[in-house]
Amino acid sequence: MAGDEWVDALVPKIMEGMTACWACPVGLNTERGINLAGQKAVHQVVEDLVSVLFPGCHGYEPMPEHNLKEGMEDKLRRIAAELKDQVKQALQYQCTVEHDKDCSKCRDCQTKAEACVSGLFKALPAVQATLQEDIVAAYEGDPAAKSTMEVVMSYPGVYAIMVQRIAHVLYNAQVPLIPRIMSEYAHSRTGIDIHPGAQIGPGFFIDHGTGVVIGETCVIGKRVKLYQGVTLGALSFEKDAQGRLVKGTKRHPNVEDHVVIYAGATILGGETTIGAHSEIGGNVWLIHSVPPHSRVYNQQPRPLIRQAQGRDRSVNDYGDDLGQGI
Amino acid sequence: MAGDEWVDALVPKIMEGMTACWACPVGLNTERGINLAGQKAVHQVVEDLVSVLFPGCHGYEPMPEHNLKEGMEDKLRRIAAELKDQVKQALQYQCTVEHDKDCSKCRDCQTKAEACVSGLFKALPAVQATLQEDIVAAYEGDPAAKSTMEVVMSYPGVYAIMVQRIAHVLYNAQVPLIPRIMSEYAHSRTGIDIHPGAQIGPGFFIDHGTGVVIGETCVIGKRVKLYQGVTLGALSFEKDAQGRLVKGTKRHPNVEDHVVIYAGATILGGETTIGAHSEIGGNVWLIHSVPPHSRVYNQQPRPLIRQAQGRDRSVNDYGDDLGQGI
Amino acid sequence: MAGDEWVDALVPKIMEGMTACWACPVGLNTERGINLAGQKAVHQVVEDLVSVLFPGCHGYEPMPEHNLKEGMEDKLRRIAAELKDQVKQALQYQCTVEHDKDCSKCRDCQTKAEACVSGLFKALPAVQATLQEDIVAAYEGDPAAKSTMEVVMSYPGVYAIMVQRIAHVLYNAQVPLIPRIMSEYAHSRTGIDIHPGAQIGPGFFIDHGTGVVIGETCVIGKRVKLYQGVTLGALSFEKDAQGRLVKGTKRHPNVEDHVVIYAGATILGGETTIGAHSEIGGNVWLIHSVPPHSRVYNQQPRPLIRQAQGRDRSVNDYGDDLGQGI
Repeated sequence: MAGDEWVDALVPKIMEGMTACWACPVGLNTERGINLAGQKAVHQVVEDLVSVLFPGCHGYEPMPEHNLKEGMEDKLRRIAAELKDQVKQALQYQCTVEHDKDCSKCRDCQTKAEACVSGLFKALPAVQATLQEDIVAAYEGDPAAKSTMEVVMSYPGVYAIMVQRIAHVLYNAQVPLIPRIMSEYAHSRTGIDIHPGAQIGPGFFIDHGTGVVIGETCVIGKRVKLYQGVTLGALSFEKDAQGRLVKGTKRHPNVEDHVVIYAGATILGGETTIGAHSEIGGNVWLIHSVPPHSRVYNQQPRPLIRQAQGRDRSVNDYGDDLGQGI
Repeated sequence: MAGDEWVDALVPKIMEGMTACWACPVGLNTERGINLAGQKAVHQVVEDLVSVLFPGCHGYEPMPEHNLKEGMEDKLRRIAAELKDQVKQALQYQCTVEHDKDCSKCRDCQTKAEACVSGLFKALPAVQATLQEDIVAAYEGDPAAKSTMEVVMSYPGVYAIMVQRIAHVLYNAQVPLIPRIMSEYAHSRTGIDIHPGAQIGPGFFIDHGTGVVIGETCVIGKRVKLYQGVTLGALSFEKDAQGRLVKGTKRHPNVEDHVVIYAGATILGGETTIGAHSEIGGNVWLIHSVPPHSRVYNQQPRPLIRQAQGRDRSVNDYGDDLGQGI
Repeated sequence: MAGDEWVDALVPKIMEGMTACWACPVGLNTERGINLAGQKAVHQVVEDLVSVLFPGCHGYEPMPEHNLKEGMEDKLRRIAAELKDQVKQALQYQCTVEHDKDCSKCRDCQTKAEACVSGLFKALPAVQATLQEDIVAAYEGDPAAKSTMEVVMSYPGVYAIMVQRIAHVLYNAQVPLIPRIMSEYAHSRTGIDIHPGAQIGPGFFIDHGTGVVIGETCVIGKRVKLYQGVTLGALSFEKDAQGRLVKGTKRHPNVEDHVVIYAGATILGGETTIGAHSEIGGNVWLIHSVPPHSRVYNQQPRPLIRQAQGRDRSVNDYGDDLGQGI
């Protein structure tokens, strides 16, 4: 790059502007000597954890049967070491920057980080068992699914719930930052945005999935099935006396066992409960509770049809069967 | 990692729980010695095939003109070898695990795999020619498109149909697993979920595309144009006497030549046909056929407008031009 | 690969078909000796620029405080050299292929490319400052956000606007191809499709974001907030005397300061202006202007509810509070 005078002249000036900006701390990942793991390092831990749960499925190399156990033990050790560091740094960041304490010398974050990772590891077999139920639910719930292996290797809804179930364990252990980076990694890959705080029962299946949003305080029962574009969201946000949003309240719906929610439906509010065995039709907008065994659907749509050469026909000419298809 | 006692204590216990889970076969990619190619290996084949169809466009390195032909021949050879292995393993998996036979020693899967890859390669020039029509359709169909090269290098709808046209050839050859992993790779990158089974004519253009779902048994004609969030889906699922979903039936719509479907429209059902030259308006919900040259749009929406200081105005104050914009 | 006779027989034939197709120039990135940078090379520049704006946040390695300044200077130099080459090639492509001139020997593209990159670099501190406002808006606008660092590291809307603000500078400098490849990279990762041409004020926040589309000629004010699935699009396309779409006209809406647009709303047309401090409800379809301080929402939805055992209840049994939740 020698001789690139225009670059030599350019860089120092820009640096001045940029470093001046560092005075304002928003989003500077080196403040007070704390270097949080980058996004991609957290993504790598997610991929490694998934590869332990489903060996050989999501990575590049197959994992040969004869040294599967050794390979997994090695991987678990590497994950433990790496994730512990990431969690420790996240805890130190929270302690130092958010709570404004000097946490650099205490061993507290270290101890907590080990406890968090141990907790996750101990939960892994149960997470794996629950995911098996999710996979079976997907296979049984989609006529296009040819085998459970196809479900594991190509269903975005299954990938999203894999990552969420892992992130949820860390969220419950009050790990900052890491669980959200994990769930956002799944969102980025699948278009499915499930907050790590959401509580979701086994046998959960999201088909297609792009555009699904599941909020932090959702509680979802067993064998629930969603389609693309479903929102389980907040109805409105509580504000405090200063007009700031109140954080941490119950804002998102409850969905009981065996509910099916079709594409594009929107269900909002922390006091909204969808009773067990209900079906919510496509594009329905619902902001209050419905009892078990309800079928909720929009009124008959009446799209107008105009044909060429001036002939207009009302939709009734095509019969009266324009339901919501649930 | 020596001295990490907490890890040494942790790992063996977790392994017990995990390997116990392997007794249940769902999603274990090492069963009976078959090691399917991992997801990422299939993704690599997709990228290599795309780089042969559009040299230098989607990868990192440019592909210099002077050794373009040699470079492509090399790449085709590598793809052939790699994809043949992947297809062979997928066929063996299907034969061994799904059909419960001993397929490890027969040459049948090997022979079939070669035939599948040969078939795909022979189809590549025709696929490329069809994609050229798709690219032209995108350029002509979007006022924001500045050049066909911009379309190739930055239009997600074009990428999604590239991958689908490749995967569709393998789907027709009854290759298990691989075509769905390929199409899901495109879904992950684009938010556009086109099943490899869908039959799609030339000059196909999806603009923006996030949230589009096109089902397995769709049949789409020539010069069709879709916008983001369009679903061409199933209306309901047939069940057998045991209450299980029937797989393999015609479940998704037909869309004839020169149809335009605007953002967020939902068209459902295997008996639904959208006649040629029709326009389907944004957010329309349609579950029955319409004849050629139809214009289908929602009835005038009547959103309410409330202004500050108690003044309420009906939407009519703003005129009566609130159509669906098709 | 020696001995793979089936491959040896296969490849030359395919090559014939493929190279024949090269006669038609659509999408061939080697024409007349110009080798545009591949997609992935442009993506790398985006990641490098983001890593300069938010050191250590989005990559793999942390960026230690002690050599932060040096590391950034190095990175800026590398970006400058690489991006200059990419821009130069894009200009040469435009000049040679689109305008059909011989631009290979003139220094014009070189000089312009340096000016474009200098312009972007000089704009970086201002871009960074604006992004800080975006981050604060996200933190203040979402009850689930625990810290500004969480926002930087896991909010897709923030990532999308980062990339758009960079691409917008290059778009304004009339760089072909590169800005759209950049914004499509963000679209691919986030499901948020913001055209580099859109003019967007500071304090912009998109929550969740999947399915958002913001067109080329949108003008958006300060402190605007959008949710997932919002379209700011074109109502219809002008055609010329030959029936071809007219490119470059104002086609997309204006959104004034402090507007909130809820999930799934569609706002269309170049003459549509949403007045300051307005709220647009979920799923609203709007194709005309509304004055400042408007609240626009759909009429009360009346989904029907059918319960088990023949009991039907109208929605009114559940009260009359079925608003649009804005």
